[in-house]
Amino acid sequence: MSNFNLDTVTSHIEQDFDNSVNRLIEWLKIPSVSTDPAYNDDVRKAADWMINELKGMGFDIKLIETEGHPVVFAERKSSNKDAKTLLYYGHYDVQPGDPFELWDTAPFEPAIVDSPHGKKIVARGAEDDKGQVMTFIEAFRAYVATHDALPCHIKIMLEGEEETGSPSLEKFLNDNKDILGADICVVCDTAMWDIDTPAITYSLRGLVDAQVSIKGPSRDLHSGLYGGAVINPLHALANIVSQLHDDEGKVQIPHFYDKVPPLTDAERANLAALNFDENAFLGEIDLSQPAGEAGYSTIERTYARPTCDVNGMWGGYIGEGHKTVIASEAHVKLSCRLVGDQDPVDIAKNIEKFFKDRLPEDFTMKFHTFGAAYALKLPIDSPYLNAAQEGLRTEYGRDTKMIGMGGSIPAVGAIKNILGLDSVMVGFGLSDDNIHSPNEKYELTCLRRGIRSHAAILHEIAKV
Amino acid sequence: MSNFNLDTVTSHIEQDFDNSVNRLIEWLKIPSVSTDPAYNDDVRKAADWMINELKGMGFDIKLIETEGHPVVFAERKSSNKDAKTLLYYGHYDVQPGDPFELWDTAPFEPAIVDSPHGKKIVARGAEDDKGQVMTFIEAFRAYVATHDALPCHIKIMLEGEEETGSPSLEKFLNDNKDILGADICVVCDTAMWDIDTPAITYSLRGLVDAQVSIKGPSRDLHSGLYGGAVINPLHALANIVSQLHDDEGKVQIPHFYDKVPPLTDAERANLAALNFDENAFLGEIDLSQPAGEAGYSTIERTYARPTCDVNGMWGGYIGEGHKTVIASEAHVKLSCRLVGDQDPVDIAKNIEKFFKDRLPEDFTMKFHTFGAAYALKLPIDSPYLNAAQEGLRTEYGRDTKMIGMGGSIPAVGAIKNILGLDSVMVGFGLSDDNIHSPNEKYELTCLRRGIRSHAAILHEIAKV
Repeated sequence: MSNFNLDTVTSHIEQDFDNSVNRLIEWLKIPSVSTDPAYNDDVRKAADWMINELKGMGFDIKLIETEGHPVVFAERKSSNKDAKTLLYYGHYDVQPGDPFELWDTAPFEPAIVDSPHGKKIVARGAEDDKGQVMTFIEAFRAYVATHDALPCHIKIMLEGEEETGSPSLEKFLNDNKDILGADICVVCDTAMWDIDTPAITYSLRGLVDAQVSIKGPSRDLHSGLYGGAVINPLHALANIVSQLHDDEGKVQIPHFYDKVPPLTDAERANLAALNFDENAFLGEIDLSQPAGEAGYSTIERTYARPTCDVNGMWGGYIGEGHKTVIASEAHVKLSCRLVGDQDPVDIAKNIEKFFKDRLPEDFTMKFHTFGAAYALKLPIDSPYLNAAQEGLRTEYGRDTKMIGMGGSIPAVGAIKNILGLDSVMVGFGLSDDNIHSPNEKYELTCLRRGIRSHAAILHEIAKV
Repeated sequence: MSNFNLDTVTSHIEQDFDNSVNRLIEWLKIPSVSTDPAYNDDVRKAADWMINELKGMGFDIKLIETEGHPVVFAERKSSNKDAKTLLYYGHYDVQPGDPFELWDTAPFEPAIVDSPHGKKIVARGAEDDKGQVMTFIEAFRAYVATHDALPCHIKIMLEGEEETGSPSLEKFLNDNKDILGADICVVCDTAMWDIDTPAITYSLRGLVDAQVSIKGPSRDLHSGLYGGAVINPLHALANIVSQLHDDEGKVQIPHFYDKVPPLTDAERANLAALNFDENAFLGEIDLSQPAGEAGYSTIERTYARPTCDVNGMWGGYIGEGHKTVIASEAHVKLSCRLVGDQDPVDIAKNIEKFFKDRLPEDFTMKFHTFGAAYALKLPIDSPYLNAAQEGLRTEYGRDTKMIGMGGSIPAVGAIKNILGLDSVMVGFGLSDDNIHSPNEKYELTCLRRGIRSHAAILHEIAKV
């Protein structure tokens, strides 16, 4: 039925792998940090770099502007007119590199170093998401190189704002529905179960973030002259933050759990059946004590329960040495991971209320949110999903684990709601890849087998 | 009895005042920030600048090295062999300029701008302590210019580490006792009661500061993958900081109040008799609600009670935009103002214990202190004090208020303990001078009348 020979494609992937690595290195050198306007030019450079690659592979390209960073859209039809249409999603933006001093090598100077699994590439974005995006890009390249054709109609949509919560994506999807039609979406931004076991992610937590700045006295004060006679804004902030959770680890934001469904016995059994190794999970980051919401296991806490975490907090003198100052202002960035039907807009309003209700009488406050996404559950049975599982079996020779993910990919919900498309989330990250942290890395074996897997998945989906 | 004519001296001060201002501006341009090693060369430059000035006034100079920044020591004998010896203390180091963005003019580009009191000079150090030091330096200059002589033997000791808690001063005083002998010490680093009313400060709070860094997971984590399953170090820090005070504003560090004497009725009556305007004090910084330890008035809280204040707190992502990270580490700088017999070394140990006792089980912690000083009370009656009051009456035509000060000048205690010298603390700052804050300023009228006052005080002390 298929005119495509997977072995030929796979052989080419092997022969060309060093070039694949070098291409990824080139891309990683461009610091496309979407959250910081200082990097705006670099974000665009990273988009342009990918456009150039895709042009060389015979794709039609559009760089589509948004109110924020642009979306790279590319399309190449299959030689088989009746083939299915697949929309691949990924992102070309990355997290900031800081704290820079904790990296062994500079975050935007990619380094190939030894790893227990062979070699790994160390750089910001090595996994999240440039390395992962390259797994399907290089699979396409291999088909084009060996067959000058693709087994399915392929559309690619790479956004530049995933790391800031995808603020422009919904409008983009609404404005461009006509060109984005497909049979299924494939998302490559998730992790494997372990280095030998593939995984498809079928549930994602939602996300809402916020920044709160509180202000007391109109200026910074000398702590000797005013200390003890005014409310210190940093004390006030610490007091509020300390009330975010009770002693049982329950989030205290009003109405936080209103739309959280209870975990069913079946769900608990499914999670337990994954045989998650809690000691290894904590030991890898030098911790020994499980923590969090009382009454839940670690895997339940990270896959299936909502959370609230401070992501940054600051105020006063934070340089070298000491300065006896009482700061005028204090600041906190926080985010909540959401499950079930929790509404990120409502939660944001209630976070604001939580802080306002606890603000000292003559203080003022500023509140700001960056991004939001609903939690999402995808079907665990479909021809596309089965084809993807078959493709992964071709490469790994074993069953794919169907897992939840604690993180959030706002795009997946928006693609479902606006384009009406389910996503197959298949990725090749590992839990110790240090994404969002110093020394982010991607195992070269994950890159290589990820490319091979995407070639095999495409081969399987062509048969659907 | 005196060969010195005060009117001649005062006339010269008036004629030379523009030059006095220009000299201060020159000195203020040197960013002698002692706490930050990046400014080490500038600290030395500020010392050298003053040495050059004093040489021109016929002083013998020594730049005396310490383990930190050097001390400027200068001496010029009186023409009157039997004259008293006065040791003047001040400091040539300044606080950091940050937050730079909140200054109307750059902190190290001094600006003369309009003020309700005429003109003021705006710069870091304009008051604290370069402007104040210049009040006595310019008084000496006027005597030398008009009489080529000084009415008392004058020694000057200017340190470069006051803003970091004077860590090298005790050793310096012990090592240099032989050259520092005097009858009385004069310290110019304090404030007036108001712009028309001089004040002598007779009590100072002590100081101890600390920096605490706590560490949980071995690296920064993705809040989606780990959120809800590990203790967030920023939450842990906020929890500890929120416990520093109880609901009544009492400091909860163990044994904190052990050596704090109760306020006597007489002391309370003295403080009440100052008619301190609490509304004006708070209104000036846009606050309306008094705060602090229950059972005490604002002036009691700032003059006579010990405090604990966070001076800086930070961790996680604090840049533009948002980053969904769980920080590995969280940091806090704090300081306590001490009264009575509180021992700064004991208090530091108990701060460390306070944090350690509340640290999550698998966290680690680093603790560091920068400086320490005991609280101090000076005699409120002595021939030198009376002479100083007389000199101030010459300039201001009214009684001097005898006040306490919430801040700390570690040198005063060390001078008492090591050299056996009492200090007369007379200064010309105002409560709205923004010391340690953006837009620090010194009123030119305070500078001018401060110089005139020191000339008059010297004239009076020569009669003792």
